[in-house]
Amino acid sequence: MPAVTLREVARVSGGTVVGDGDRVINGVCSPAECREGMLCVVWDHGILELIPHNIPVLTKSGTLSGRDGIEHESPREALVDLLTLFDRRAARTPGVHPSASLAEGCSIGEGVYIGPCCVLTEGANIGDRTVLQGNVFVGRDVVIGSDSRIEACVALHDFVEIGSRVIIHSGVTVGCDGFGHVQTDGGWRKIPQIGIVIIEDDVEIGPNSTIDRATFGVTRVRRGTKLGSLLHVAHNCDIGNDSVMAGCTGIGGSVTIGRGVIAGGMVGIADHVTIGNGVTIAGRSGVTKNVRDGLTVSGFPAQEHMVETRFQASLRHVRDHTERIRKIEKILEKSGLGDKRNDEL
Amino acid sequence: MPAVTLREVARVSGGTVVGDGDRVINGVCSPAECREGMLCVVWDHGILELIPHNIPVLTKSGTLSGRDGIEHESPREALVDLLTLFDRRAARTPGVHPSASLAEGCSIGEGVYIGPCCVLTEGANIGDRTVLQGNVFVGRDVVIGSDSRIEACVALHDFVEIGSRVIIHSGVTVGCDGFGHVQTDGGWRKIPQIGIVIIEDDVEIGPNSTIDRATFGVTRVRRGTKLGSLLHVAHNCDIGNDSVMAGCTGIGGSVTIGRGVIAGGMVGIADHVTIGNGVTIAGRSGVTKNVRDGLTVSGFPAQEHMVETRFQASLRHVRDHTERIRKIEKILEKSGLGDKRNDEL
Amino acid sequence: MPAVTLREVARVSGGTVVGDGDRVINGVCSPAECREGMLCVVWDHGILELIPHNIPVLTKSGTLSGRDGIEHESPREALVDLLTLFDRRAARTPGVHPSASLAEGCSIGEGVYIGPCCVLTEGANIGDRTVLQGNVFVGRDVVIGSDSRIEACVALHDFVEIGSRVIIHSGVTVGCDGFGHVQTDGGWRKIPQIGIVIIEDDVEIGPNSTIDRATFGVTRVRRGTKLGSLLHVAHNCDIGNDSVMAGCTGIGGSVTIGRGVIAGGMVGIADHVTIGNGVTIAGRSGVTKNVRDGLTVSGFPAQEHMVETRFQASLRHVRDHTERIRKIEKILEKSGLGDKRNDEL
Repeated sequence: MPAVTLREVARVSGGTVVGDGDRVINGVCSPAECREGMLCVVWDHGILELIPHNIPVLTKSGTLSGRDGIEHESPREALVDLLTLFDRRAARTPGVHPSASLAEGCSIGEGVYIGPCCVLTEGANIGDRTVLQGNVFVGRDVVIGSDSRIEACVALHDFVEIGSRVIIHSGVTVGCDGFGHVQTDGGWRKIPQIGIVIIEDDVEIGPNSTIDRATFGVTRVRRGTKLGSLLHVAHNCDIGNDSVMAGCTGIGGSVTIGRGVIAGGMVGIADHVTIGNGVTIAGRSGVTKNVRDGLTVSGFPAQEHMVETRFQASLRHVRDHTERIRKIEKILEKSGLGDKRNDEL
Repeated sequence: MPAVTLREVARVSGGTVVGDGDRVINGVCSPAECREGMLCVVWDHGILELIPHNIPVLTKSGTLSGRDGIEHESPREALVDLLTLFDRRAARTPGVHPSASLAEGCSIGEGVYIGPCCVLTEGANIGDRTVLQGNVFVGRDVVIGSDSRIEACVALHDFVEIGSRVIIHSGVTVGCDGFGHVQTDGGWRKIPQIGIVIIEDDVEIGPNSTIDRATFGVTRVRRGTKLGSLLHVAHNCDIGNDSVMAGCTGIGGSVTIGRGVIAGGMVGIADHVTIGNGVTIAGRSGVTKNVRDGLTVSGFPAQEHMVETRFQASLRHVRDHTERIRKIEKILEKSGLGDKRNDEL
Repeated sequence: MPAVTLREVARVSGGTVVGDGDRVINGVCSPAECREGMLCVVWDHGILELIPHNIPVLTKSGTLSGRDGIEHESPREALVDLLTLFDRRAARTPGVHPSASLAEGCSIGEGVYIGPCCVLTEGANIGDRTVLQGNVFVGRDVVIGSDSRIEACVALHDFVEIGSRVIIHSGVTVGCDGFGHVQTDGGWRKIPQIGIVIIEDDVEIGPNSTIDRATFGVTRVRRGTKLGSLLHVAHNCDIGNDSVMAGCTGIGGSVTIGRGVIAGGMVGIADHVTIGNGVTIAGRSGVTKNVRDGLTVSGFPAQEHMVETRFQASLRHVRDHTERIRKIEKILEKSGLGDKRNDEL
């Protein structure tokens, strides 16, 4: 674990030292796990008083006084630099491990690391400085760009194209057959899935997710998009740039998602739905219809979030309705209006 | 990419050429991705006008005129033949890769391919022409039939039986312990899971799915059934013939599912539920009770689809009820009927 | 398959023989799959009459008469011993398979089994009698205790700590990056995930589940807890002792779960939620707020189970409300009270 001064932290993150810049820290902690030698990251400066005075803090500009720390306009961005500083997982030394299996016709760039028991089949093409951690399977003619990181037990199937600076976490499969079958008299007949998958630059795919190949054509995840864990992208989807979708989500076949979309976890999206740019999808929503640009949706079937919120709130009144209706009926009965003949209307 | 004439396409798929049978195509495209040299597949002949005239189409019999193409009674079935024609993923050349690890007592059929870093433990038995793609783990005494395809990073545990023409996609686990524990004074005690799993002929299992072994007895997926991605089958399930269940679905312990069942994605089925033959389960349903043959169910708790639809529609009236009840109360109050004394009924 | 006498079964499980103690059995079956030579396990002694008389049974004390079998105060606990007796999956013979890849500085205990194509990177430390089944990836400085079982195609990433008697099923990933990104003008910037994961003693993790490392600090699963299949634990979670959570569940970032919590399948828990000790969460619930000790919750958003049950029941009355309100309106109209002017109130 490196030891750095607050001055160094400020320099790296673009923040400002308050108090003793020579103060040395060995790591980062949250308010709940404060301890000596750490820099405590505080999003909500309202709780600053609760942090022991001897622990330096990283917080928003203009809120520190009388204690050591770093002020930053965006503490969250500063944290990124700070964590990079303390990341113990050093880069792999380039090389191909002797237990890796490389078929003929593979092309390996400069500074590539191919870990133990990785399997590269014919025509695989790995760009400079890309890391294949271990037990990775790479199918025929797969292309991976430079500076990408493919973690353990990942399967990249034939003809898949992966961009540069892509991170694919362990257990992910890219390019398995899409799920398509035709009903015939002799049972279900498989529709061959001969399309490909393209994962563009700067994409990140969470552990154990599955991105299926297109029936024909392309399943595409566009530049800068981040997908969570245990997330399924079915055949022929097109997911736009710079979107972020949390884990445990299922995206049906031929779904189109715009750029800058943000989705919570456990979302379901039905086949063939189109979701516009800048849409926000609340966690656990089930989207069954197209969504216009910029909308926030929630619920199942998902609808505009404000409408869904009012709808859900309305349901809380049903028990009250039962009582009020009963009372009204009694009044009418008592008054002789709600008698039998009226009931038979 | 092979180049074939429309005449050849018609011959292979059983369709009829319209126009120039010598016309050469190099692949298949959708209306949205039309381009020169491709055959455009059109399900909805209403949009035929929108496809550039120089692109030949595959569509329903009796709808083409004045342009090149193929007519077929079932374009969807024709597509299966067509995609097979253009599938570039050629069969593996038989053989056992030197990096594969075969324990003593394994039995390997004719024309089998066992890819790099595959692991076969004692007594594994692989049928003719079956492919194990790479990084596959095969437990003790596992039996796999002929012409099956086991993709990458699959784990098949001790005593599992896999039929012929089965496809198991990457990242699948078959035969992990079922989830069973007994509460004791000393905490949860594991119930050993000593049963097996039988995957019958012509089954397909989507990537990263999990099929657990039975506590005792058998977890079974019957002939011709197709399961999607990230789908969980718990211990002691019995899934009938020719059923199709989409991905992200969780099937509880000891669930029995009939034949010809069709289920959408993200469905949950509670432990011990029995689902009849020919049942349809809408996506995202949560099935908590037995379902009779032939029924279509939806919702959570799932009920007959028409009942659920009416139920959901009824909920849209609650806000209206609030207003109407308020109005009625005002009327009664104004008329002197709804006064204090009545309120206290 | 071993053959044992009822007397032996009684001895091992602490039960009492009824009838012929020399009777030999070869395995265990359920009432639905009764067959000669097996011991039939019967939870519900009301169905004893339906079990063929020649099949011995295991059932509750004081309910057997006139047939062979075992009585036990807790048949479910007896079953655990019984299944252990018939478990054919014998322990692996200790040793390191020649195809395994061990980096320098690994430390391997006594009686350890490291199967084919396992990968251990620098500093991995494996405790006595622990089994790594095959195709397992172990990152830098990972520590695993004794008597643990790591199944196939598991990925344990750098600095992860696994306790003793832990079972990690196939396809699990432990210690992949948590899902965290900061929105900047140039798109999403990854927050480095430099924390660790600690899996304490006696934990079991179901197949294809994912346990993410902490952003900084620790993601922790405490002693004795059992997690199901395809279950996601996000960064910085803390899951208490002796909890049991079924499969297909997604647990958001920084969630704290108490001890003795029981959760059904397909549950979602939102980021930062705290769940108390002894809480029960019904299957398919979506927990969005903190839950007090001992509560049972269900629904989405999850609330106290009795409240949710009443709420759901109330919704079944909405269609009835529509009719009753219409009837009341007609009565008022007829009586001249509900006329136009009143409508305009």
